[in-house]
Amino acid sequence: MSQSFRRGVCLVIAAPSGAGKSTIAQALRDTDNNLFTSVSVTTRSPRPGEKEGEHYYFRDLATFRQMAENGELLEWAEVFGRGYGTPRAPIEKALAQGKDVILDIDWQGFRLMKKALPEDVVGLFILPPSLDVLESRLRGRQSDSEEEIAKRMMAAEDEISHWSEFDYVVVNQELEKAIEEARSVLMASRLATERCSMAKTFL
Amino acid sequence: MSQSFRRGVCLVIAAPSGAGKSTIAQALRDTDNNLFTSVSVTTRSPRPGEKEGEHYYFRDLATFRQMAENGELLEWAEVFGRGYGTPRAPIEKALAQGKDVILDIDWQGFRLMKKALPEDVVGLFILPPSLDVLESRLRGRQSDSEEEIAKRMMAAEDEISHWSEFDYVVVNQELEKAIEEARSVLMASRLATERCSMAKTFL
Repeated sequence: MSQSFRRGVCLVIAAPSGAGKSTIAQALRDTDNNLFTSVSVTTRSPRPGEKEGEHYYFRDLATFRQMAENGELLEWAEVFGRGYGTPRAPIEKALAQGKDVILDIDWQGFRLMKKALPEDVVGLFILPPSLDVLESRLRGRQSDSEEEIAKRMMAAEDEISHWSEFDYVVVNQELEKAIEEARSVLMASRLATERCSMAKTFL
Repeated sequence: MSQSFRRGVCLVIAAPSGAGKSTIAQALRDTDNNLFTSVSVTTRSPRPGEKEGEHYYFRDLATFRQMAENGELLEWAEVFGRGYGTPRAPIEKALAQGKDVILDIDWQGFRLMKKALPEDVVGLFILPPSLDVLESRLRGRQSDSEEEIAKRMMAAEDEISHWSEFDYVVVNQELEKAIEEARSVLMASRLATERCSMAKTFL
């Protein structure tokens, strides 16, 4: 499209654990060459082989909190005492250059993202076909105790209760179809007139 | 999606003459089995082989105007003394049943549609790669005089000036890609949360 330029889309994908979010996000990343890969900040220690700036930016908790305070993180959370966040500067740069970004985070992260970048963020929620299917998928992993499964189901129900805050919803009944649908959301979001500007020939 | 129900989408496609609108709309209709085919009302006489209720609803001008007056048409126009319009009742019924509708009309029709069905209508504008390309496509048809081409270009520029009122824009540089993009707009519009309602398991 030589006559037009568009800002990038920041597609935020959320879902309860077990709905297939990571698989779907990875499938989009694997087949799309206009995506910028966001590297998160974390306060946990690097695992063997993990590299600063490639897998994560590793920061101590005080630095992490200061970054959040300074507005250097678009969204962040502390989970079980560990901080995770999305740095603002690289994403703003990518979007301004017309690159797109996919983030898989939770509904709280989505709210923060939407607040930080209201015109760039598109929210996609992935639902399992039903809670029963979700539970049997979680049980399929086998390693978890009944208590652990009950906890995960409660967390899943909490996450699901926010589905309608998102712009789009995909029900992951059949993986290939769900991937195709998620891809159509990304493609259509790129075509939104509000993100496009046309050259003078069309103004 | 047994747990969910959604209203249909009414995709309105507009474009300047020569941008490929009819080809793209037809490609979507040929490959999609959830579409309701809207039959227009017209005041022109049936051509040989044209059947009432299949190709058009044929009405005289007085009846047509009365229908518009009564709100029985979602959008309508009189062009060179001939009336064309889209009947309301069949489309409202189709959308309520979850069927989708594609209409290829102009920007004025789109405005009327958006006013009549603000929550159901999604607007897609098809642009040629440039005005030069559009002009050479129009010249390629050869049959038209210079005056006719100049008139068409003026009409095209007028239509194009409204592109940003639409929700999505596709630049038809390469037909297959433009069809894929238009299809993603239809598919994504179906996934919009505002059109979906979930069963109680998810509320």
